[in-house]
Amino acid sequence: MVSIERGKTLEKQRIAVLGPGSWGTALAQVLAENGHEVTIWGNKPEQIAEINERHTNAHYLPNLQMAPSIRGEFSLERAIDRADAILFVLPTKAIRSVAKEVNQLIQNQPHIVHASKGLEQGSHKRISEILDEEISPKNRAEIVVLSGPSHAEEVSVHDITTITAASAEQTGALYVQSLFMNDYFRIYTNTDVIGVETGAALKNIIAIGAGTLAGLGFGDDAKAAIMTRGLAEISRLGVAMGANPLTFIGLSGVGDLIVTCTSVHSRNWRAGNLLGKGHTLDEVLANMGMVVEGVSTTKAAKELADMLKVEMPITESIYQVLYEGKDIQQAARDIMLRDGKIENEFSIE
Amino acid sequence: MVSIERGKTLEKQRIAVLGPGSWGTALAQVLAENGHEVTIWGNKPEQIAEINERHTNAHYLPNLQMAPSIRGEFSLERAIDRADAILFVLPTKAIRSVAKEVNQLIQNQPHIVHASKGLEQGSHKRISEILDEEISPKNRAEIVVLSGPSHAEEVSVHDITTITAASAEQTGALYVQSLFMNDYFRIYTNTDVIGVETGAALKNIIAIGAGTLAGLGFGDDAKAAIMTRGLAEISRLGVAMGANPLTFIGLSGVGDLIVTCTSVHSRNWRAGNLLGKGHTLDEVLANMGMVVEGVSTTKAAKELADMLKVEMPITESIYQVLYEGKDIQQAARDIMLRDGKIENEFSIE
Repeated sequence: MVSIERGKTLEKQRIAVLGPGSWGTALAQVLAENGHEVTIWGNKPEQIAEINERHTNAHYLPNLQMAPSIRGEFSLERAIDRADAILFVLPTKAIRSVAKEVNQLIQNQPHIVHASKGLEQGSHKRISEILDEEISPKNRAEIVVLSGPSHAEEVSVHDITTITAASAEQTGALYVQSLFMNDYFRIYTNTDVIGVETGAALKNIIAIGAGTLAGLGFGDDAKAAIMTRGLAEISRLGVAMGANPLTFIGLSGVGDLIVTCTSVHSRNWRAGNLLGKGHTLDEVLANMGMVVEGVSTTKAAKELADMLKVEMPITESIYQVLYEGKDIQQAARDIMLRDGKIENEFSIE
Repeated sequence: MVSIERGKTLEKQRIAVLGPGSWGTALAQVLAENGHEVTIWGNKPEQIAEINERHTNAHYLPNLQMAPSIRGEFSLERAIDRADAILFVLPTKAIRSVAKEVNQLIQNQPHIVHASKGLEQGSHKRISEILDEEISPKNRAEIVVLSGPSHAEEVSVHDITTITAASAEQTGALYVQSLFMNDYFRIYTNTDVIGVETGAALKNIIAIGAGTLAGLGFGDDAKAAIMTRGLAEISRLGVAMGANPLTFIGLSGVGDLIVTCTSVHSRNWRAGNLLGKGHTLDEVLANMGMVVEGVSTTKAAKELADMLKVEMPITESIYQVLYEGKDIQQAARDIMLRDGKIENEFSIE
C-alpha cells in the first residue's frame, strides 16, 4: 500500500487493468505514458495476442498505437501479481464474479479502483459496494471510484480531459490522482463516493431519454430541459441513497451528463436516438454491439425509486417504454408536459 | 395587482413587452397565444410599423408570423398604459434609463418582469436591483425574473421549452407562471432571485470560453470540463453574492449553460468560437450585429471576484484575452492545466 500527498510524484507503480474495452485501453495507455508498469487483463486470447504482438486493440480503439510496455495477460493471477493497484473497467454485471476471483489471488494490499458505471441488477448495489463485499479489507487498501466526462477516443489523442477520483478517505483519491495526472488528463478529488457512483450510473438513463427526444425531432430547448430536470431527479435519488446533492453539479454529475447527452458517440444516447426514430429495443440492442448500461440501470433505478419513495418521472417514463411497451410519443409528451412545479427541492441550512 | 394560486387560469391580462428583439418577440407571441392583450414597445419606427402592418419582425425572427392581436407601440406611455405586467427584455445597459421613464409613467401597480441577462457595468448590480432602485415599490407589485434554456426560434415553433420564474415572494413567480404556462412553454417557480440572475448573467462568460476552446480545436471532453468547472466558479461567485448553490443545478443555471454552450445559435458561444479561430475582438463584435452580453459581463464578474475575493480562474483568463490582449492559446492552456484540486468546495450541514 502506497500513500501520497497532493502533487507528489509517484515512483513507478505496477497496475493491473481488468477489462480491455475502449475505456480500459485508454486508461492503460495514460498509465503507461506516465511511466507505470501496466498489465491489461482480458478473456479473449486473440485480443490479448493482438495487444502483445501488434500493440493495438483495433475493435475498441482503432486509431491507437498502444505503448509497447503495456502487457496483455489472459491469466488473472499473473495480471494482478504484485500489483500496487487493480483497476476494474468491466461491465457492471461482470464485477462481482471477477472481484471474487481477485480476492482469492490478491497479494500486496493494492488499491482497488473502478471506472464502471452501473447498478447491480436485483440488489441495486453500487459498484464500490460490490467490491467492498467481495474483496476483504485485509487484502486491500482503499476503494476508489474514477468517473467523469470522457471519451476514450479523445483521451487517446491527448485531448484535455478532467475526471473525479473519489474515496471515503482522501488518501485513496490522492493516490489515484498521482497515478493518472498529467498534461492532458486532470484529476479532481472528492470524498462523496455515493454521489459520484450514483451520478455516473444514473446519467445513462437521462442519456437514453435525451437521445429519444432528439430521435423524435425535439430541439435544443427540450434537450436542456430533459437534462436539467433529469439531473434534478437523479440527484433526488442519489440524496435518498446518501449522496451530497452538490456532487451532482460536478464532473461525475453534470459534466458526464453533458458529454453523454450532447455527443453522438455516446452509446446510451445512440440507443435512445434509435428508439425515438421508431426502432424496437431488441433491434437497438442487437445493433449496438457493446453493452448499453443505461437499459439495465433504468430498471434498477425505477425499483430503487419505488422502494425509497422518490419521484422520478423521467426514469419512470423511460422504464415504461423499455420494459412495458409504452408508446414512445406518449411517453415524451408525458415527460415534457407535467404540471408546473417548484424548481428546487433541496434546502441548505 | 393580481394574485394567483398555482395552476389557476388567469383572465385576460394587459401586458407590455419592452424590447422587440428575438426573445421579446417570442415571449410576446406566447402571451398572445395564451389569450392576453400584448403591446410590444420599441424605438425604431420602421420595426414597429412592420409589426403592426405585416405582423412580422423579420430581422429578429424571420420565420414567425406574429399574432395579429400583438400591437407595436413607439410611445412608452401608451405601451404601458393600464398594464397588469411590464416585461423588460432589453440589453442590460438600457434597463436603468427605461426603468426611470417607466417609473414616471406607471399606473395600476403592475408586476415588473425581466428576461435580460447581465450585470450593470461599474455598479455590478443585478437587473432586479436596478429595477428595484428605479421603480418605486408603491408603483408596482413584485419584481420577477424569467430565465432558462431557450432559443426564441424554438419557442416560436412550439418546441417544448422549460423556464424558471423567480421572485422573492412566491406570489410574483406564480403570477408569471400562470401568464406564460401552456403546452409548449413550461414554467418552474423559484424564490432565489440572486441565484437565478447570477446564473443567467455569468453563464455567458463560460459560453465564450467554450466557444473559444471549440474554435481552437479542443473536443467534447474539454467542452464538458470548461462547462463543469465554469459552473463551479460561477456558483462560487453567486454564493458570495447571496445565492443558494443548488439554484445553479437548475434550469437557469446548468440548463441555460447547456443550451448556450452546446448550440451554434448562441451569440456568446459564436463570439468565442471566432476568437478561437484567430479573429480579433473588434472583428468579432463588428460581425455579430447583436449585443454580446458576455463580453461586458466578463469585466463585471472579474471586478466582483476581485472585490469579493472569489477565485475564478476561467473568468480571469477570458478577461485577460478580451481586455488585456493575452495570447489565446496560452490562456486555454492556463485554464485547462491548473493543479489538481478538491472538486466540491461548498458544504451542506
